[in-house]
Amino acid sequence: MNSDNFNLSEKIVSPSYIRQGSQARRGHEQLIRQLLEQVRSKLYFVSSYHCSEDTSSFMLCVLQGKCPEEGWSESTVELFLSELAVMDSNNFLGNCGVGEREGRVASSLVARRHYRLIHGIGRSGDIAAIQPKAAGSSLLNKLTNSVVLDVLKLAGVRSVASCFVVPMATGMSLTLCFLTLRHRRPKARYIIWPRIDQKSCFKSMITAGFEPVVVENVLEGDELRTDLEAVERKIEELGAENILCVHSTTSCFAPRVPDRLEELSSLCSKHDIPHIVNNAYGVQSSKCMHLIQQGARVGRIDAFVQSLDKNFMVPVGGAIIAGFDESFIQEISKMYPGRASASPSLDVLITLLTLGVCGYKKYLSERKEIYSFLAEQLKSLASAHGERLLHTPHNPISLAMSLDGLQANSDKAVTQLGSMLFTRQVSGARVIPLGKEQTVSGHTFRGFMSHSESYPCPYLNAASAVGITREDVTVCIKRLDKCLKTLKKEGGAVSSSDQEVSIGE
Amino acid sequence: MNSDNFNLSEKIVSPSYIRQGSQARRGHEQLIRQLLEQVRSKLYFVSSYHCSEDTSSFMLCVLQGKCPEEGWSESTVELFLSELAVMDSNNFLGNCGVGEREGRVASSLVARRHYRLIHGIGRSGDIAAIQPKAAGSSLLNKLTNSVVLDVLKLAGVRSVASCFVVPMATGMSLTLCFLTLRHRRPKARYIIWPRIDQKSCFKSMITAGFEPVVVENVLEGDELRTDLEAVERKIEELGAENILCVHSTTSCFAPRVPDRLEELSSLCSKHDIPHIVNNAYGVQSSKCMHLIQQGARVGRIDAFVQSLDKNFMVPVGGAIIAGFDESFIQEISKMYPGRASASPSLDVLITLLTLGVCGYKKYLSERKEIYSFLAEQLKSLASAHGERLLHTPHNPISLAMSLDGLQANSDKAVTQLGSMLFTRQVSGARVIPLGKEQTVSGHTFRGFMSHSESYPCPYLNAASAVGITREDVTVCIKRLDKCLKTLKKEGGAVSSSDQEVSIGE
Amino acid sequence: MNSDNFNLSEKIVSPSYIRQGSQARRGHEQLIRQLLEQVRSKLYFVSSYHCSEDTSSFMLCVLQGKCPEEGWSESTVELFLSELAVMDSNNFLGNCGVGEREGRVASSLVARRHYRLIHGIGRSGDIAAIQPKAAGSSLLNKLTNSVVLDVLKLAGVRSVASCFVVPMATGMSLTLCFLTLRHRRPKARYIIWPRIDQKSCFKSMITAGFEPVVVENVLEGDELRTDLEAVERKIEELGAENILCVHSTTSCFAPRVPDRLEELSSLCSKHDIPHIVNNAYGVQSSKCMHLIQQGARVGRIDAFVQSLDKNFMVPVGGAIIAGFDESFIQEISKMYPGRASASPSLDVLITLLTLGVCGYKKYLSERKEIYSFLAEQLKSLASAHGERLLHTPHNPISLAMSLDGLQANSDKAVTQLGSMLFTRQVSGARVIPLGKEQTVSGHTFRGFMSHSESYPCPYLNAASAVGITREDVTVCIKRLDKCLKTLKKEGGAVSSSDQEVSIGE
Amino acid sequence: MNSDNFNLSEKIVSPSYIRQGSQARRGHEQLIRQLLEQVRSKLYFVSSYHCSEDTSSFMLCVLQGKCPEEGWSESTVELFLSELAVMDSNNFLGNCGVGEREGRVASSLVARRHYRLIHGIGRSGDIAAIQPKAAGSSLLNKLTNSVVLDVLKLAGVRSVASCFVVPMATGMSLTLCFLTLRHRRPKARYIIWPRIDQKSCFKSMITAGFEPVVVENVLEGDELRTDLEAVERKIEELGAENILCVHSTTSCFAPRVPDRLEELSSLCSKHDIPHIVNNAYGVQSSKCMHLIQQGARVGRIDAFVQSLDKNFMVPVGGAIIAGFDESFIQEISKMYPGRASASPSLDVLITLLTLGVCGYKKYLSERKEIYSFLAEQLKSLASAHGERLLHTPHNPISLAMSLDGLQANSDKAVTQLGSMLFTRQVSGARVIPLGKEQTVSGHTFRGFMSHSESYPCPYLNAASAVGITREDVTVCIKRLDKCLKTLKKEGGAVSSSDQEVSIGE
Repeated sequence: MNSDNFNLSEKIVSPSYIRQGSQARRGHEQLIRQLLEQVRSKLYFVSSYHCSEDTSSFMLCVLQGKCPEEGWSESTVELFLSELAVMDSNNFLGNCGVGEREGRVASSLVARRHYRLIHGIGRSGDIAAIQPKAAGSSLLNKLTNSVVLDVLKLAGVRSVASCFVVPMATGMSLTLCFLTLRHRRPKARYIIWPRIDQKSCFKSMITAGFEPVVVENVLEGDELRTDLEAVERKIEELGAENILCVHSTTSCFAPRVPDRLEELSSLCSKHDIPHIVNNAYGVQSSKCMHLIQQGARVGRIDAFVQSLDKNFMVPVGGAIIAGFDESFIQEISKMYPGRASASPSLDVLITLLTLGVCGYKKYLSERKEIYSFLAEQLKSLASAHGERLLHTPHNPISLAMSLDGLQANSDKAVTQLGSMLFTRQVSGARVIPLGKEQTVSGHTFRGFMSHSESYPCPYLNAASAVGITREDVTVCIKRLDKCLKTLKKEGGAVSSSDQEVSIGE
Repeated sequence: MNSDNFNLSEKIVSPSYIRQGSQARRGHEQLIRQLLEQVRSKLYFVSSYHCSEDTSSFMLCVLQGKCPEEGWSESTVELFLSELAVMDSNNFLGNCGVGEREGRVASSLVARRHYRLIHGIGRSGDIAAIQPKAAGSSLLNKLTNSVVLDVLKLAGVRSVASCFVVPMATGMSLTLCFLTLRHRRPKARYIIWPRIDQKSCFKSMITAGFEPVVVENVLEGDELRTDLEAVERKIEELGAENILCVHSTTSCFAPRVPDRLEELSSLCSKHDIPHIVNNAYGVQSSKCMHLIQQGARVGRIDAFVQSLDKNFMVPVGGAIIAGFDESFIQEISKMYPGRASASPSLDVLITLLTLGVCGYKKYLSERKEIYSFLAEQLKSLASAHGERLLHTPHNPISLAMSLDGLQANSDKAVTQLGSMLFTRQVSGARVIPLGKEQTVSGHTFRGFMSHSESYPCPYLNAASAVGITREDVTVCIKRLDKCLKTLKKEGGAVSSSDQEVSIGE
Repeated sequence: MNSDNFNLSEKIVSPSYIRQGSQARRGHEQLIRQLLEQVRSKLYFVSSYHCSEDTSSFMLCVLQGKCPEEGWSESTVELFLSELAVMDSNNFLGNCGVGEREGRVASSLVARRHYRLIHGIGRSGDIAAIQPKAAGSSLLNKLTNSVVLDVLKLAGVRSVASCFVVPMATGMSLTLCFLTLRHRRPKARYIIWPRIDQKSCFKSMITAGFEPVVVENVLEGDELRTDLEAVERKIEELGAENILCVHSTTSCFAPRVPDRLEELSSLCSKHDIPHIVNNAYGVQSSKCMHLIQQGARVGRIDAFVQSLDKNFMVPVGGAIIAGFDESFIQEISKMYPGRASASPSLDVLITLLTLGVCGYKKYLSERKEIYSFLAEQLKSLASAHGERLLHTPHNPISLAMSLDGLQANSDKAVTQLGSMLFTRQVSGARVIPLGKEQTVSGHTFRGFMSHSESYPCPYLNAASAVGITREDVTVCIKRLDKCLKTLKKEGGAVSSSDQEVSIGE
Repeated sequence: MNSDNFNLSEKIVSPSYIRQGSQARRGHEQLIRQLLEQVRSKLYFVSSYHCSEDTSSFMLCVLQGKCPEEGWSESTVELFLSELAVMDSNNFLGNCGVGEREGRVASSLVARRHYRLIHGIGRSGDIAAIQPKAAGSSLLNKLTNSVVLDVLKLAGVRSVASCFVVPMATGMSLTLCFLTLRHRRPKARYIIWPRIDQKSCFKSMITAGFEPVVVENVLEGDELRTDLEAVERKIEELGAENILCVHSTTSCFAPRVPDRLEELSSLCSKHDIPHIVNNAYGVQSSKCMHLIQQGARVGRIDAFVQSLDKNFMVPVGGAIIAGFDESFIQEISKMYPGRASASPSLDVLITLLTLGVCGYKKYLSERKEIYSFLAEQLKSLASAHGERLLHTPHNPISLAMSLDGLQANSDKAVTQLGSMLFTRQVSGARVIPLGKEQTVSGHTFRGFMSHSESYPCPYLNAASAVGITREDVTVCIKRLDKCLKTLKKEGGAVSSSDQEVSIGE
C-alpha cells in the first residue's frame, strides 16, 4: 500500500501498529531496491562510456546485476511478482484492448499459475527487447538475465560479458547459435564436433543445416578425451573458411570427460574459427566452468550454452546463451524471431531469488561432496561384485562402473539390468552395453551411447548432479546391489516384469 | 513497489512504460483507498461527537464503511491481501519471536491458503480488539465488519447500527447472545420460542443453559404462522422478569413462514423483554430484512443473527451478529473469550470485494426470479401428479408441494422419495412425512420437521436460495418427475439401491 | 485415475511407462490406505464389544486412528484433499441443489483456498456428526480427530480416550465445557480457579455464566504454585454440590508454574467435583502432558483443552477438547449447536500429515533443547546486567528474568523496555511491571499479569515454544542487551519513537 | 481413491454417503475416460492398417482425439493434472535419482505452478517422443496435440491430418519449418513472400538462412491483395528448384487482407514448390481457416503455423505446427533437437478442457459479432471526424480508419495520436503514418507497417480478436473520439505527457 493508504489505516488500527507494519513493508521494498539498484548502477557506468543512442546497446548494458546474497522469503517473491504483474497492460484496471495480442486469458487457472504475467518476453525483432504493453514482463526479463549473468560469474566464468535466457532447451539453443554464425560465415558448411553420444547435440547441427564432422575420442586410461590432433587435421583438410565452428562439450557421461577446452580454444583462435561450447549441465561444476573461463582467456569461445533445468532445478525448457563479446550475444538474441515464453525466465528468477547466492552455493558444495560419496560407494559395490569403478578423474559429475562380469554371465544381462533398475525406480542410472549401433539423421554411430566405436567394456553410469541427496545414493546402491545379485543367481532367467524397457536418453 | 523502486525501474525499462505501469498500480491503490477512506471518514465524524478515549468505543465507531460498488478484480484482491499480510509480525523479515503464540506455521500449504494471515482476530478480552502483533489481520477484521454492515443496510435493514463477524455458525452465535443477556437478566430462566423444527436453534438455547418455552404455530390456510396470543399468554404466565428473551425466526422451510416480527417486537417492547432474531438465511430476502427493519422500528430487536455461508456463498462456519444498539453488540463481542479464526472473515471479505454491491445485488435479484420460476415449475409438476403447491405467500424462499397421493399409494413411499432424490443427486429437497416424533435434548417434538404437531399432509420442500441457477430447477423438476412416476408404478417395490437414507438436517 | 483409464493410457503412451506410473499412484493410495485402515481396525475391535446400534457411539469408537510415522509429501496431501473434495455434493458434476445450504461458493479464490471443501463439519445436532451431503468433509473430520487423538497419546497422555477439534479458540472451548457441565450439575454456581492472569481463561467462566472463585497462588522460592489448602478450604466453604468444577492450568508464564494437577485431581475425586484443565500450549511439553496423565491416573480430570495454533503451528482459531471418558467428550460435542468451520481441522490435518509423527517429535525435541539454550543465554545476560534468571524449574516453557535494577533506575523504564522490544521486532517478550491493577468483567486483580497480588520484582518473560529457532533466541538476546544498555545510559530519557505501546495479551 | 480406500471409508462414514461420493468420483473419471478413449480408438483403427513396429509412426497415429464438448470444471481439470503428475518419476515416492536430469525442483512455488510436471515434453530425438521417466508428461503432450488437432478441424480446416504444439512463438516455429524443408530441398536458397509488415515473419526466413523474395501487394479498392502474377513471375525467374517454398499469410492488419491461398496453393502444386502458411491468429476466424482448407483441397499447403496465445487466450510462447501430411509434420517435430517446455502445452490443454468445444465456439461467435459492432462504431466515428472506414471486406479481423484529416492538420498529429492512445490505456490500436522507412536484417522496406511502398493514406487499426468484449470497443471509441477532438483543437500543440512513444510491434 502507498503512504496515503497507510495513513488511512492508522485511523482504523492503532497508528503505532500500522507504522510497524509499514516499516515491515519497507523491508521487502528494500530487498527489491537492492535488486534493481545493482542493475541500474552498472548501467550508468557503462552507458557513459560506450553506449550509443541505440536502444539495443542500451539494453545490453543493463545485464550486469546481482543475485541477492541471502534468499528471499516466498512472501517477498510473490509480492514482487504481483508488483510486476500490475505493470502489464492486461492487468490495467482501465485498459481497453483492440489489438490482436492483448494478454487475454480464458482460464483463471492459467492466469494464476503465471502470476498474471501473460505477455511473454521480447518483441518481433529481438527476444531481449522491451515491450510497451508489458513493462512488468520486460523488467522481469531484464532482471532475470542480469541475475543469471551474476550467477554464471560466481560459478566460475568470471569474465563472461553477456547472456540471456531463451525458452528453448539446450539443443535448439545451439541451433540458434549456429544459425547466427551462418550470417557471419556464409560459405561455411561443416561443424567440427568431438564425438559425444547425445542425440540432441548432434541434431542441433543437422537442424541448423550443417554437416557435422565427427571426431572420435582417444582412450587415455579409462577416459575418452578429445583427439586434438584429429581436430586440427580436419580443420586443415576442410579449410578453415568452410568450417562454421568447432562445437565442443563440457559436461558428459563418464568415461568420456570434458573436452580439452583450452587447447581447442587456442586452435580456434589460431585458425580464426568460431567456437561454441555445449556446457549443458556444467554450471554446477566448478571444473567445467573453469575450463570455459580458461578457454576464453587463452583462446576463443564465442558462446557457451547451458540448460536451465539441469543446472538450476527448474522445469525443462530453457537455456542460457552466454558469451564474452556482448555484440555477438546480442546478435544471437536478435536472431530469435518474435516473442517467446516468459515461463523459463520466471522459473529461474523465482528460484534464484528464493535461494540467493548462499543457497545456490550450498547446493553446489553438497553436490561435490555427494560426488565423492557416490564414487566411494560405487567403488566398494564394484569390488564386491568383481567389477571396478572406471578411473575418470577429469569427469567431475558422472561416474562409470564396469559390467564385465555381468556381460560374461549372459548376453542379455546388461540390458536387463537397465530394465530392472527402471522398474525399481532407480532413475538416471544408464546401462551401456557393448557394440550398439544407431543411425541418427543419416549418420551411423558404432558403439552408440559409449562415445566410442569400441569401448573396452560395458558399464553403468551414475551421476552426482545438483540437488542429489545422500539418500538417493544410498538407496540406489542398495537396489543396484540387489539387482546384481539377482542377475547372477538367475543367470539370465529373469521374471517377465523385468522385460527390456528402452530407457535411453 | 514504492516510488524509489519505480524510479530505479525507469533506468532499466523505458521510463514511459514504467510510468504507465506505476500509474496502473495507482489504480489498484485507489480502490484500496476508497475502501479505507469510507471507514475513516465515518470514524472521524463519530469520534468528534461522542467517542471517548476508550479504545473499544473507538473501535466500534469504525464499523461504518462501504462495500465497493463494483467488484474488484482477483488481482486487486490478492494484492490487497498480500499487503495486509506483510503488516503482521509473523511476516516481518527481521522478527524474532520468543512468545508462545508467534504465528509460526509448519506447513507452507497452510500458510499459503491463509495468505499468510495467521494471527486470527481479536484478543483475550474481545473478539473485535486490535492485535499489536498483527496490524494487517486487525485491519482485515475491521474492514470486514464495516463492509458487512454496509451490505446488511443495503439488503434492507437500513437502521442497523453495528455488527461483527464471528467464526461460529448461527446456532453457537445465538448461544453467545443468550449468554450475554444472562448478565443483564440474571434471574431469567426461560426463552420464548415460536416453534421451528431445526435442531440447532433449539440447542442454542439448551447449550446456553436456558429452558426453551415452545410456542406452537397456528395454521392459516396452508401457512404455519406465529401464535401471538400464545406468546403473550406465556409471557404473562411465566413473568417477564423470568424470561431471558423472545427468540424468533425469519427464514424457514415452508409451510412455516417468517415470524410476525413487528408484533413480536412490539410485545417485547411492551413487556421489556429482549428479542433475539434468528435470521439464518434471511439476508438474501428483502422480505425477511424488511421484517427486521420494521420490527426494530416499531418495537424491540436486540440482536439478529445470520449465517455467512447461506447468505454470502462462503464455506460453512461463520455468522454475523448485528443489532441496533452499538453498546449491546459490543457487549456480545466482548463476551467471546479469546482470539478466533479469521477464516470466515477472510472468506466473506474476499467474496464481497470480488462481487461488489452490484454483483451481490445481481445474485439477489436472480434468486428472486428463480423463486418465481421454481414456484411455477413445482405447481405444474404438482398438478400433473395430482398434488398441489401449498399456498405460502409469506415465505419468500422455501416452497412446499403436497405428497398426499404418494402417501395414499404406500406408507413407505414418502420416505423412499427422499432417498431416491438423494441417490439421484438432487440435494436440498426435503421430504416431510407425517407424524414423525423426535426427542431433542429431552424435549419431544411431535410431527418433527413439519414445525407443527399435526400438519395436514406430507410434503416436499424446495428452496430458491442465493446462488441457485435456472438449471438447478429444471434438472430437479425433471428428476423429481421421474421419481414420482417410478414410485407410482412400483407401488412401493423399490430397488435396493434406494433404501432409506437419513437425509434430514 | 481408475484402472480403466490407466488401461486406456497404455494405448497412448508405452504400457511399461504407464504401469510404472500407475504403480507410483498406488504408492500414494497405500499411504491413504494406512491412514484409513488404522481407523477402521480399531473400530472393528471396539464395535464388537460395546458399541450399540446407536450411530453416535459408533462414531465415537472411530476415534482411534494413527498419525503416519513419516510425513507425507505435499503432492500426496493435495491428492488426498482433492479426493475428499470430489465426494462432497457441491462438487458432484450432476448435482442440482434446491436447498438453502448447498455449498455454493461465489469466489473462486475462496473455493480454492478451502480445496473446495465447503460444507464445514457436523450437523445441527452434533459437531461430530456425519453430513449426508458431504461425505468427504465428514471423512476429513473423523480422520482429523483420530489423528489428533493419536498425537495427544504420543505427546504423553497415553490413556486419553477421546477428543475432537472445535473451531473455537481455547477460551470459548472452555466455555463449552462449562456449559456442558451445567446440565450435569444444575445447582452449581461456582468454579474454583487457581489464579492465572490471562483474560480469556477468566472470561471463559464469566461467559458461561458462572462465578469464578479465584484462589491466589503461593510463592515457593521464585515460583508461584497452586495453594492446595486454599482450594480445599474453598470447596468446603462453598459446598461441593455448588461447585461446577475446578478449573486448573498447565502451561503458563513463569514464574507461575503448572498447577499441581495430581493433587487437584485427587481432591476433585475425593469431593466428586468435575475437573477441567486448561492445557493451552501444553501439548508441546512432555511435562505438562505427564501432569495430565498422572492427574487422570490418580484422580479425576473430566476434560482438558488445548489450543491448535500454539501447539501445532497452524493459524489461530481452533482447539482440541479431550478427555478420558468417551461419553462425556461426546456430550460436549453434542452441546455445540449446528455446523462449524472445517478450516482449523483442515489446517491441523494438513500439518500433521505433512510432518508425520517423526516431524512433530523433531519439533518437540528442538523446542526442549532451545529451552535450555534460552535459559542459559538469559542467565548470562541477566548477570551481565545485574539481574537474575528466576529459578522456575517447574515451568518447562516460559522463563523470567528479574528487572529490579531497571526499576531502580527509573519508574518508567520497565514499561519502556516493553515498547522498545516491540519497536525492534522482538515479539512475544512480555515485560511485567509491579503493581498493575486491572478489572476484568467486574473482578479486580491486583498485580495483574504477574499471577500474584504482589510478586517481589518486576520481570521479563521469554518462552521457548514449538517452532522457535536458535536464531530467534540469539537475535532476541542481542536486541534485549542493546535495549537494556540504552535504558541504563539514558536513565529514562528515551526517544519519542519508543513511547509506550500496549502490548499485553 | 481406489476401491479399497472407498471400502475402508465406508467403515468410517456411512456407506451410503461414501458410495454417493465414490459415484461422484466416477463422474470425473468418466470425463477423463472419454478424453482418453477418443485417442485410443482412433489409434486402434489406424494401427491395424498401416502402422509398422516403428514407435514413432505409432505415436503419430494417436493424434486423433477429441476436445470435450462441454468444458470441465476446474476441479476435474486439477484432479486430472494431479493424476498426470503422480505418474512422473520426480513424484514417485520411492524414487532415487542418479542422473543429470531428474526433475528436481528447488522452489516449491515453481513446482506448484507447474502442477509438479517438471520433465517437459519430448526426448533428445523428437519433441513428440514419449519419456520413460515421465509417463504423465508424455500423456499430457499426446492429449494436448490431439485435442488441439480436433479444435483445428472444428475451426474449419476439416482435413488437417496432424499437428503438434511447440513451445516457440510463431516466428521461430516458421523457422523450424524452413529448416526442415532445407533437408528436402538442399539446393534451394529463396523463399517467395508476399509482403506483410511484421518483423518476425521476415526474420523467420532470415534466421533460417534463406533469402526472402518480397512480392509487393496490389491495391484493389482499399485492400492490399496478393499479386499472383508477380509471384509466378518470380518463380519462373528464380527457377522452382531454387525456391525453398512460398510463405504466405492469412491473418494480418487491414487494409492488407489474407493472401489468395487457393491460387497460391495451386501455383505451388503446379510448380512443385512447398507452401508454408503463416496463420498467426487465423484460427479464430472461419474465413482464414476456410482459406487454408480450400488451399489444401485445390493445391498444396505443406504446413500452417498458428500462435497459441493469439488464438487460445494463453500466455505468449507457443505455436501449433499443422499440416495435411502426417509424415511431413512428424519430420518437423523430429527436427526440434532435445526436450522442450511443457508450459504452453499445459496452458492450452487447461484452457481447452475448461472451455470445451462449446465454450470455445461461443468465444468465436462473440468475436464475430463484435467485429461487426466495431466496424459500425468506427464507421460512424470516422464520418463524424471527416474520415472513413476503409473498405476491406476480405479481412475478417482487423479494420482500418483513414487519418487524412489529421495528417492535413499537422505533420506530427498522426504519430501523436498513437502516443495519446497508449497513455490513455487503449492498447492494440496502431497508428500508421505515411512513408516510414525501415531496414530489417538488411532489407529496406518503404512505407513500413503499411504492407505497401505507398499506401494512399495514413490510418488507424483496430481489431476484433478472440476474447474482446463490447466494453473494449465502447471505451476505445470514446477515448479515440476524445483524442481526435483534442488533436484538432490543439492543432499539434500537445502536452508533454503525450510525447512520442514507440509502440509498434
